[in-house]
Amino acid sequence: MIEHLITHINKFCSINPEKLNALAPFFTHKIYKKKELLLREGHRCYEKFFIVKGCVNIFYLRQNGIEQTVDFAIENWWASDFLAFQDGSVAQFSIRAVERTEVLYITADHQLELLKAIPEMNEYFHLLFQRSYAAAQMRLRFLYEFSKEELYHHFSEHFPAFMQRVPQYLLASFLGFTPEYLSEIRKKHLS
Amino acid sequence: MIEHLITHINKFCSINPEKLNALAPFFTHKIYKKKELLLREGHRCYEKFFIVKGCVNIFYLRQNGIEQTVDFAIENWWASDFLAFQDGSVAQFSIRAVERTEVLYITADHQLELLKAIPEMNEYFHLLFQRSYAAAQMRLRFLYEFSKEELYHHFSEHFPAFMQRVPQYLLASFLGFTPEYLSEIRKKHLS
Repeated sequence: MIEHLITHINKFCSINPEKLNALAPFFTHKIYKKKELLLREGHRCYEKFFIVKGCVNIFYLRQNGIEQTVDFAIENWWASDFLAFQDGSVAQFSIRAVERTEVLYITADHQLELLKAIPEMNEYFHLLFQRSYAAAQMRLRFLYEFSKEELYHHFSEHFPAFMQRVPQYLLASFLGFTPEYLSEIRKKHLS
Repeated sequence: MIEHLITHINKFCSINPEKLNALAPFFTHKIYKKKELLLREGHRCYEKFFIVKGCVNIFYLRQNGIEQTVDFAIENWWASDFLAFQDGSVAQFSIRAVERTEVLYITADHQLELLKAIPEMNEYFHLLFQRSYAAAQMRLRFLYEFSKEELYHHFSEHFPAFMQRVPQYLLASFLGFTPEYLSEIRKKHLS
């Protein structure tokens, strides 16, 4: 299972393979059933999750009780409430398995030990989070740049497999649409 | 000058002071005049900038020729097009000094050398970018959660010094308002 993570690490930096072989004990392998929660808003966030297989959505509860999806994570992505994870504070987001999802997670305590034992992992997380931050900046640019309909077309073009995979009501939530509006755009797009 | 950066590093992690004393040669100190560009969209991005004193805005050029501000950075923030910096690709954003701005910048080449000489700096950048990414996720939440007027009030409450400091037309751009609409909201807010 850990090989998935090692493959991902090797995309970002070169860490001595012997050290990478010592990674496994710091991580826990877990399978979440479809719709099971990985993290609940308002609770402490002790883990960060590396998605080995599957898909999760990151959401918060609107005042009207509706779940607002702000992001997804699929294979090779990390998901957590990273502020709550880093500070030991209460999570502002929930995370739920969109489908059966297999993860490797690490707790904040285990991460401290990991970074002592294999400080080279800081390089991986540095480059990973620098890229994630940059991607979030690009997403902000898209939100300024595109109308809602253009946003749909942008995601369809750039992430077609992803668009097929995610249930329509979650995609609509993510794009800030009503499900009805999304359905209209899809029909227009297909015709 | 480097003490500002060292103070910031010490907020995130503890690196041996002797090692931190070896930081300076990797950085260049530079002062940008008000309105001077630090980075130009469409050009290569070789540097990342630590703001010692001042304020910059990060923007892109809309198809209609208008500059759309997507973010600001003030003292103790890092600014760059981090994707372009990491990949050596072309910048999707420009960065301009909102006021006279003093920076310490590091080039991608110097950063490679720095991380070889002081690999502990990866820990700083890991925790820094994890936090930046988390802050970007929270900002996305605000964009879903708040109306434009609520967004203005949110920023006024949480970043009052910042709101005073930034010219109105840039703030309007950042909030996605016309300057006229911002002026109306301010009047309502003050009355």
